[in-house]
Amino acid sequence: MADYRTSALKSPIDVAEYLFLRLREIGVDSIHGVPGDYNLIALDYVSKVGMKWVGNVNELNAGYAADGYARVKGISAIVTTFGVGELSAINAIAGAYSEHVPVVHIVGTPSTASQKNGMLLHHTLGNGNFNVFADMSQNISCVVEKLNDPTTVASQIDHALQQCWIQSRPVYLSLPTDVVQKKIEGERLKTPIDLHLPENDPDREAYVVDHSNYGGVYAGEGSQPDVKKRVEASDLILTIGAIKSDFNTAGFSYKTSQLNTIDFHSTKIAVKYSEYPGVHMRGVLRQVINKIDLSKLSAVAGPTVVNEVNDNDDGTPTITQAWFWPRVGQFLKENDIVITETGTSNFGIWETKFPKNVTALSQVLWGSIGYSVGATQGAALATRDAGTHRRTILFVGDGSFQLTAQEVSTIIRLGLKVTIFVVCNDGFTIERFIHGVDADYNDIAAWHFKDIVKVFGAKDGSYKTFQVKTKEEVNKLFADKTFNAAEVLQFVELYIPRDDAPRALKLTAEASAANNAKQ
Amino acid sequence: MADYRTSALKSPIDVAEYLFLRLREIGVDSIHGVPGDYNLIALDYVSKVGMKWVGNVNELNAGYAADGYARVKGISAIVTTFGVGELSAINAIAGAYSEHVPVVHIVGTPSTASQKNGMLLHHTLGNGNFNVFADMSQNISCVVEKLNDPTTVASQIDHALQQCWIQSRPVYLSLPTDVVQKKIEGERLKTPIDLHLPENDPDREAYVVDHSNYGGVYAGEGSQPDVKKRVEASDLILTIGAIKSDFNTAGFSYKTSQLNTIDFHSTKIAVKYSEYPGVHMRGVLRQVINKIDLSKLSAVAGPTVVNEVNDNDDGTPTITQAWFWPRVGQFLKENDIVITETGTSNFGIWETKFPKNVTALSQVLWGSIGYSVGATQGAALATRDAGTHRRTILFVGDGSFQLTAQEVSTIIRLGLKVTIFVVCNDGFTIERFIHGVDADYNDIAAWHFKDIVKVFGAKDGSYKTFQVKTKEEVNKLFADKTFNAAEVLQFVELYIPRDDAPRALKLTAEASAANNAKQ
Repeated sequence: MADYRTSALKSPIDVAEYLFLRLREIGVDSIHGVPGDYNLIALDYVSKVGMKWVGNVNELNAGYAADGYARVKGISAIVTTFGVGELSAINAIAGAYSEHVPVVHIVGTPSTASQKNGMLLHHTLGNGNFNVFADMSQNISCVVEKLNDPTTVASQIDHALQQCWIQSRPVYLSLPTDVVQKKIEGERLKTPIDLHLPENDPDREAYVVDHSNYGGVYAGEGSQPDVKKRVEASDLILTIGAIKSDFNTAGFSYKTSQLNTIDFHSTKIAVKYSEYPGVHMRGVLRQVINKIDLSKLSAVAGPTVVNEVNDNDDGTPTITQAWFWPRVGQFLKENDIVITETGTSNFGIWETKFPKNVTALSQVLWGSIGYSVGATQGAALATRDAGTHRRTILFVGDGSFQLTAQEVSTIIRLGLKVTIFVVCNDGFTIERFIHGVDADYNDIAAWHFKDIVKVFGAKDGSYKTFQVKTKEEVNKLFADKTFNAAEVLQFVELYIPRDDAPRALKLTAEASAANNAKQ
Repeated sequence: MADYRTSALKSPIDVAEYLFLRLREIGVDSIHGVPGDYNLIALDYVSKVGMKWVGNVNELNAGYAADGYARVKGISAIVTTFGVGELSAINAIAGAYSEHVPVVHIVGTPSTASQKNGMLLHHTLGNGNFNVFADMSQNISCVVEKLNDPTTVASQIDHALQQCWIQSRPVYLSLPTDVVQKKIEGERLKTPIDLHLPENDPDREAYVVDHSNYGGVYAGEGSQPDVKKRVEASDLILTIGAIKSDFNTAGFSYKTSQLNTIDFHSTKIAVKYSEYPGVHMRGVLRQVINKIDLSKLSAVAGPTVVNEVNDNDDGTPTITQAWFWPRVGQFLKENDIVITETGTSNFGIWETKFPKNVTALSQVLWGSIGYSVGATQGAALATRDAGTHRRTILFVGDGSFQLTAQEVSTIIRLGLKVTIFVVCNDGFTIERFIHGVDADYNDIAAWHFKDIVKVFGAKDGSYKTFQVKTKEEVNKLFADKTFNAAEVLQFVELYIPRDDAPRALKLTAEASAANNAKQ
């Protein structure tokens, strides 16, 4: 099929090499995934083009890690195998779609001949239908391309990567075993993929960004009272990329009117009740900045937001949610990457005032528990790949941690020096507040969490573990210079009572329960 | 929507109660799954009807466990939550579909009102489309029912459970939060679901079953030479439920002719090249048995198959694949349940002659690595639920174990006394034989496997761990009375060299590599 024209190629290159070179070009330095016999030959090209293979412990974790990597590095890629591998990852890919994260999902498939002949191969449904799994990815990918034909592979790859970047959503590429080493035209690589994102005017952009304009988090009833008052009394509200989902608004409790709101999104703009689909925020925001006459702005100084640690100290030794999250704000440093898990951490972090340039990762809309452990691996690797070496700090509940715990082993194997706080509060607290406060289905197994690091192969001296049960122990830990330096993997068991939850979580859970019951 | 007619119900019953009572009726005593806010209220009914909630560590593992439970108990059920939960389980459900295992997948979804209004809820894609995930399950379920309307819910449930049982494949039921407690007619429960499977004549069936007719495993080039010779020289071959997939036939290396073969399947019969779809094996097999004149059968005694332990002893202390698997045959007892993972264990077990009534579980067609750990939990629970308390023994490779390791914590929490052998051979040996024998992508992290039991919360005295590195240590372990009694959880690290593989695996891997490359 291929040889008849490879002689016409100026710079013949193998399909897999082309694919990985393109990925490297757009910023992917490490490839996440799990090996499987339908992708093995393709994986040979990862090191060949100078990239790193991560080798996650399972595909769901690999997907979460790729998501975290993309949020820090701009884009990522995951390789899985046909059927079993891709389906294990599909929840993570759906999450990336839901949350607009650009992840390239490459699936190694049986050869085109096997597919054509409907062979009874392992990893199939046994019915000769080789399209089922790609079809499942249609509604959670902005592009699905089957790389079956060497004459179109290069343009399919370029199109998919371009759309992944521009739409900031997953794309799906299936790569049959017999196509991996087909020769295609390498000359194309001389022309980079056109990612044409308009650049903002640096000076004006800097003015907007430099302005000290953080006044708190608005989330309806979940807001701090002064923030709620100021936002709801505004004449005009510009929201930029804000998704007013139930978990972002303490159960749709926002009291802003669409009549004085302009919403900027990556795929549409809404001015009052008029929607303009297909208009992206980047261009419009630049126009808005261009047209603003700064001299006419009556800049009112925002409220000063501080971490209210003392105000939230109940005087007991017990670590409370109300006290802990503002206290985290004092521990954080500029440029930290903070990952929070769905549950108490995701709502608690609303009470944390960050230093400058902190990157916060969470999955508030999709909300798949276990996400944060994989995402932490991806984020930590991304900052290392980028040469920035930012501290990477995870807050995850004990229940959620159990779903994806083994990805700590990848963190260890890669030598990533992350700091992990496992909030030990005996199970699924967020669910207890929604329904079944004492139900056994919200209980979990009692693990010895910190001992998992050694079991997963961490060498003595390459990690430290901690157990903190009182405010004083937290204070001592946060004051420790070595702990702050985070030069090894640090794993902290943090004990908070089972029935304690952040204020915003309680409101949101109550609203969720009411909505679930609504006729 | 419901009240207008509940007054007409003779024995009003809540939808969730009806569902779980029906499941109990057909043999499900324990419900697998993970809690999520869209299924919490439904979970209250599990204990209410006297069933047990398993509470797996994640949904993929729950799906594998449900698969294992169904293979031993006849049928099983798993409850997940909308989007995140169901997609995490989807690989396991696809596996059950591929391998004809009856699993009822119940998905708790947002309320019908939320769905109708396209609300921007967590666990959605943010686009108002609430059908995407159920659509994904269409091609891996024999029935998909959305339980939205109380007037049809009961018949939808009955139909789905009936088809799940009869077709022996997964069904998908979505249950909105507001439907869980709707009242429906409980009188229907007085009529059991008609599972109408024809019964075989017991005497004749006994004749066939009692006959000592095991002559070995035929798998083309992967067979023992005398088995291969006898099968391929046969005048007529009746295959019953045999799937001639690549992994079952050492890469399609069978030398039998379809011209003297009759294949019996659960969904079709093939006589030579004529296929009869829709004709199930049960009825046909009964007719065949009825029509056989036993006096005219020239019963030739089959070859005696024995576990060739001494013949495979290479005289070194090292545990080899060739020696170990026949040795396992001597260790096994009647009625044991043996679970083997895709990889060396799945091929090695071909060399093991079982005692009577051993049940072997594996996933040869779907071949999702990690399956066996969850399946072991399900199988062990199933035999306990059935009151049979059979020894449950798992053989899993170190690479595969890592994917789903945390399900050992469910085994611990439920007090299941399984015996786990982790074959420690430094990574994905099956893949090394297909491609990349020394490639880093086939390497894994070096865990301290046996220490995981304590980390996952096993109490002292409730478990034992072992490390065996020589044939002598295996012999000593297999001779130990306490070990044979298996009265606690037993976890064995079994060391076999990295580059050793069972004979059949080597042949199959070679054929796979060739097929992957074929143009």
